[in-house]
Amino acid sequence: MATEQSLILITNDDGITSKGIASLYEAVKDFGEVVLISPDSPQSGMGHAITINDPLRLYPSKLFPGIESFACSGTPVDCVKLGIHQILNRKPDLIVSGINHGANTATNVLYSGTMSAAVEGAMEGIPSIGFSLCSFDSEADFSAAIDIVKSIVESSLKNGIPEGVCLNVNIPDLPKEALKGIKICRQAHAYWEDRFEIRTDQFNRTYYWLSGDFMDIDQSDDTDLFWIAKGYSTVVPTQFDMTHYKAIKELENWNL
Amino acid sequence: MATEQSLILITNDDGITSKGIASLYEAVKDFGEVVLISPDSPQSGMGHAITINDPLRLYPSKLFPGIESFACSGTPVDCVKLGIHQILNRKPDLIVSGINHGANTATNVLYSGTMSAAVEGAMEGIPSIGFSLCSFDSEADFSAAIDIVKSIVESSLKNGIPEGVCLNVNIPDLPKEALKGIKICRQAHAYWEDRFEIRTDQFNRTYYWLSGDFMDIDQSDDTDLFWIAKGYSTVVPTQFDMTHYKAIKELENWNL
Repeated sequence: MATEQSLILITNDDGITSKGIASLYEAVKDFGEVVLISPDSPQSGMGHAITINDPLRLYPSKLFPGIESFACSGTPVDCVKLGIHQILNRKPDLIVSGINHGANTATNVLYSGTMSAAVEGAMEGIPSIGFSLCSFDSEADFSAAIDIVKSIVESSLKNGIPEGVCLNVNIPDLPKEALKGIKICRQAHAYWEDRFEIRTDQFNRTYYWLSGDFMDIDQSDDTDLFWIAKGYSTVVPTQFDMTHYKAIKELENWNL
Repeated sequence: MATEQSLILITNDDGITSKGIASLYEAVKDFGEVVLISPDSPQSGMGHAITINDPLRLYPSKLFPGIESFACSGTPVDCVKLGIHQILNRKPDLIVSGINHGANTATNVLYSGTMSAAVEGAMEGIPSIGFSLCSFDSEADFSAAIDIVKSIVESSLKNGIPEGVCLNVNIPDLPKEALKGIKICRQAHAYWEDRFEIRTDQFNRTYYWLSGDFMDIDQSDDTDLFWIAKGYSTVVPTQFDMTHYKAIKELENWNL
């Protein structure tokens, strides 16, 4: 069981004013001492970006009375680094990121600021979880998601997350009674079929907006996309070792 | 062997005016038709960030006479997406990124814009390679690195890079005669022991600069950090599936 003494760091990528981070705070506040550091503006799609060429600012926030909370001028990964190495006086027992407004299934884990914050936590040896609700609506209903978060946080504090791993949790956008359960699975193989909308600005100069369709080329029955579509929440154990071990042998045959 | 018909897309994260990208162009220009799209400003540390809330601009460049080249207002991954889906009229045979000014060994692959461009290429099913020279000097000597790039590009076009994999190539900052050879290996387990320098601006407000020491906690004899230190260039096959498969079983015991 969680003890009063657990220290929990909260962050996200939608920014400190989002409904998702308020919902995450609601879900974890009774599990221990909570400190919150969140970007001062939306940081979706920032992936594992860090701020190295600009100064970082931290502004104490009044949005979460009763706990220490800050808005940060940087990325989600900056928030984690500032939390661990600047704000907290001891290593946190858990980092939670989210609840993201929108799914971070499949290969989206690479673009996701929410998940990159959790990956950064794992790199620092801290149990870390990213949570996402499969709805981009800024006013989405997080009430069912809050229950899922509580259940996974409780289990994580009890069992301990394996070393070198963080959890990528996606929750379908369904009412509580329609949620089927929780599945542990792998990241689906999918990609964005990108398109660029070409527009012209007021000075008659061309600019481009990134757009596209998400293509699931996996179609297996053991992926996050498969289970989400069936009404299950998914937990993908996510690592930061990007080595493709099987390819090492194949490349050795090149005799470079 | 490479044919005249190979279409090669070049990008990087240090920006279009860097010596590293000029060196990469020098290395690959005879392997086929080359198109270059590079950030208009340094994008180090941008990881897999994409630009979704701002328009993207592309400016034709005169820095590479004789080929189509563009400066892009976005990130390295934006450059790859614009290249594939907007500029090129067919799928490229190879994407090369770099040559980065500075190592992208170990877990730095996650922060690296250079490598994220290559990972994005792999996600799109295109053979992709990121190259880095282990020197942050903007005037570093790339002449030995150019030979390594040529050798690896030739082998990649001949053998084909395994599906779902891109190559992370790091080259020691040594004169040609001191380079020992090329090793295929895994990413070392390491992390940044971060520090923040606290400073005060002209309005007496606090700001933070990210700083720190890179900590190799691996110490094995099969990693990129190990071989680089011995004078070898390293090739790490790098994947975009971040699932930690072994942890799936362990998490299933949680009975969530």
